[in-house]
Amino acid sequence: MAENGFQGALTYIYDPAILLRLTSFQAEYKNGVTPLNPGETLKLRPLCLEDYDKGYLQLLSQLTSVGDVTREQFEDRFNKMKACDDTYYVTVIEDTTSKQVIGSATLVKEQKFIHRSTARARVEDVVVNDSYRGKQLGKVLVDVLVSLGRELGCYKVSLECKDHNVKFYTIFGFEAGKGQNYMQIRFFD
Amino acid sequence: MAENGFQGALTYIYDPAILLRLTSFQAEYKNGVTPLNPGETLKLRPLCLEDYDKGYLQLLSQLTSVGDVTREQFEDRFNKMKACDDTYYVTVIEDTTSKQVIGSATLVKEQKFIHRSTARARVEDVVVNDSYRGKQLGKVLVDVLVSLGRELGCYKVSLECKDHNVKFYTIFGFEAGKGQNYMQIRFFD
Repeated sequence: MAENGFQGALTYIYDPAILLRLTSFQAEYKNGVTPLNPGETLKLRPLCLEDYDKGYLQLLSQLTSVGDVTREQFEDRFNKMKACDDTYYVTVIEDTTSKQVIGSATLVKEQKFIHRSTARARVEDVVVNDSYRGKQLGKVLVDVLVSLGRELGCYKVSLECKDHNVKFYTIFGFEAGKGQNYMQIRFFD
Repeated sequence: MAENGFQGALTYIYDPAILLRLTSFQAEYKNGVTPLNPGETLKLRPLCLEDYDKGYLQLLSQLTSVGDVTREQFEDRFNKMKACDDTYYVTVIEDTTSKQVIGSATLVKEQKFIHRSTARARVEDVVVNDSYRGKQLGKVLVDVLVSLGRELGCYKVSLECKDHNVKFYTIFGFEAGKGQNYMQIRFFD
């Protein structure tokens, strides 16, 4: 265990030290939960290469279709994301008792030429294990990602969400883009 | 001039050869325009490091605020995007007579663990110089990017657009996500 509370032997997808620099959070919490300490046996941290064995893909399958992804494919994808510097902030919560990843959300940073060649960021793939609902963990994950977006110098953070989640995202300051439309073409599932 | 019609001496942000592999286009064109040959003096190609001197940032300022970006900052941003392999497909149209970039649109690819660890892509920052409107160049740029998204193995291509552009994007097969909302937090302009 390194001094900052993150295990030095693990391969993190981004430097966990940045999480300790986050200070501005938006949501209110009950029962002593804080964004960086979401629960007694719960640890918030970057995704690790080792999480293939901690149910990470099974967790994602509660969100959408994942399909068969071998360990080799997972590691290849992880390493490609990590090689893309300053881009994939995949953030998870592990239950250290069961050694299972039980929550995940990703901030993806997109570099721009516009807006003084800064960047924008997006909240993607927010999921909390069914058995851990009602513990404010979705709130924790999104709050951390928005704070991270600010810390990383992004001029905005955006997301796409279903109608029933709009109210939830207003907690953090997200506003529906007036006259803005989301459109897509889907090639396969 | 290399065999494929792209100049070997330029530093492209992505390999131009992929453009020659594109075959599936969606829009209809008049006056002999085709996606890869948008006009007699017009050349569609990846953004180049050399485009700082071809009015690229001035073009972007027709879209939104760009601010002061020095050559050094531009080159730094360009190189960081290029270092992020298989991600930033910034595609431009140059008027080879005036040697000015007069159109630009970007496909950004986002790697995923979901959907068999494939990827999604987004159409971003579509702009055509005011003086070149009505020449089907916006259509050319978006058509090329959608085809590129398919060629790159993305499971979907999406975009955000203003109300008055919704009809334009349906040409390529984009559909408004039913019950999908776009939300954002803006930190600065």
